[in-house]
Amino acid sequence: MSMRYTVGLVRVLTLRDEELLNLHGRIIENAFPDLRVVSRCIEDQPKGIYDLESEEIAKPKILRLAKEFEKEGVKAVVISCAADPAVREARKELRIPVIGAGSAAASLALAYGDKVGVLNLTEDTPKVIKDVLGSHLVAEGKPEGVRNTLDLMTDWGRAAAVKALKNLLTRGVDVIVLACTGYSTIGFAKIAEDIAGVPVVDPVVAAGAVTLNILKQRELRGVTG
Amino acid sequence: MSMRYTVGLVRVLTLRDEELLNLHGRIIENAFPDLRVVSRCIEDQPKGIYDLESEEIAKPKILRLAKEFEKEGVKAVVISCAADPAVREARKELRIPVIGAGSAAASLALAYGDKVGVLNLTEDTPKVIKDVLGSHLVAEGKPEGVRNTLDLMTDWGRAAAVKALKNLLTRGVDVIVLACTGYSTIGFAKIAEDIAGVPVVDPVVAAGAVTLNILKQRELRGVTG
Repeated sequence: MSMRYTVGLVRVLTLRDEELLNLHGRIIENAFPDLRVVSRCIEDQPKGIYDLESEEIAKPKILRLAKEFEKEGVKAVVISCAADPAVREARKELRIPVIGAGSAAASLALAYGDKVGVLNLTEDTPKVIKDVLGSHLVAEGKPEGVRNTLDLMTDWGRAAAVKALKNLLTRGVDVIVLACTGYSTIGFAKIAEDIAGVPVVDPVVAAGAVTLNILKQRELRGVTG
Repeated sequence: MSMRYTVGLVRVLTLRDEELLNLHGRIIENAFPDLRVVSRCIEDQPKGIYDLESEEIAKPKILRLAKEFEKEGVKAVVISCAADPAVREARKELRIPVIGAGSAAASLALAYGDKVGVLNLTEDTPKVIKDVLGSHLVAEGKPEGVRNTLDLMTDWGRAAAVKALKNLLTRGVDVIVLACTGYSTIGFAKIAEDIAGVPVVDPVVAAGAVTLNILKQRELRGVTG
């Protein structure tokens, strides 16, 4: 009864290490065994996307990988970045579902609560997350001094993230969105949820759930009672 | 690795037939085998919720079932109705996640597109769906002449639903929400998606995906590359 779907996942930074490349895919496969994830990364951007210019440079590369995935027959494409780079463009050109980690996390948050807090890593809240949340976005924050995911892996970085999280919680939020996939890498959602006592949405897991939902739904057949 | 979670599901109308009672639960279990769903229904409301008064009468009954489920140790509670009756109230009183089919479907829609069309059955768009979608709600409609799910099971009822769907599609929507679980009963999402060529979100499947996401995420452990 249960079939496995192959999904293409785009990493928006250049990664030579296979294990790092496959990390987000493995998080999704572990959470949702019905999904098999093939990961690829864009070339020549070892620092990934960190401002508008680097995003513009990355977009055509992301789009090319997405099209390549579709041609190879995957059932959906995940763009594994909370800023949803090239997601709109890819939706226009592809026939299969295109899922962005940012819109996936923001949208799922609205299924858990009304007042959403966004925990960023280094940047401000991505535009796509603001767009999805609209008036439900009630608080934003980020850890002081953290410059990248490596910082987040240190004790002081994690402490800074916990402090920023606690600050959001004083603002009456009833759900938290982690607005950077760097949080997924260190499994911060679980730590955060233990502290927060409210749901905390991990962007990579959210992308997996949103992908699984649309693919599973297509298997549906009418039940005649 | 894969563990099964028991989830309580509240049907918001009185059903004596076991098969009908378990129908939504079975849709969720078929889509997401990691979830085991126990269904219960409110008493003394064979016509379910059809206006504000019947909703107010139903709310304390829904809340009581939700609390009962939590006491028995389920991992989450699903209120299987697109109007999310008593969902807010239950979230205040329960410690486990409470998922409403309406907010689940509306929120997932935002992960698939910006401009959302809502296909109702007999009522207007539920308030909770309007709240979640905000300015993303661009079109609403319902099948002419259809008074209940039984009508929808007839050839003419289905034809009316297809007509209403096609009408929404002329309004530039890029995703459709089915805003009544009656559509889930007849597997309308699959029919609709074949016609629409855009994602169509089924409220019962959506509730399952949203529930699975939050429970799976809690299993997460940090991956140290």
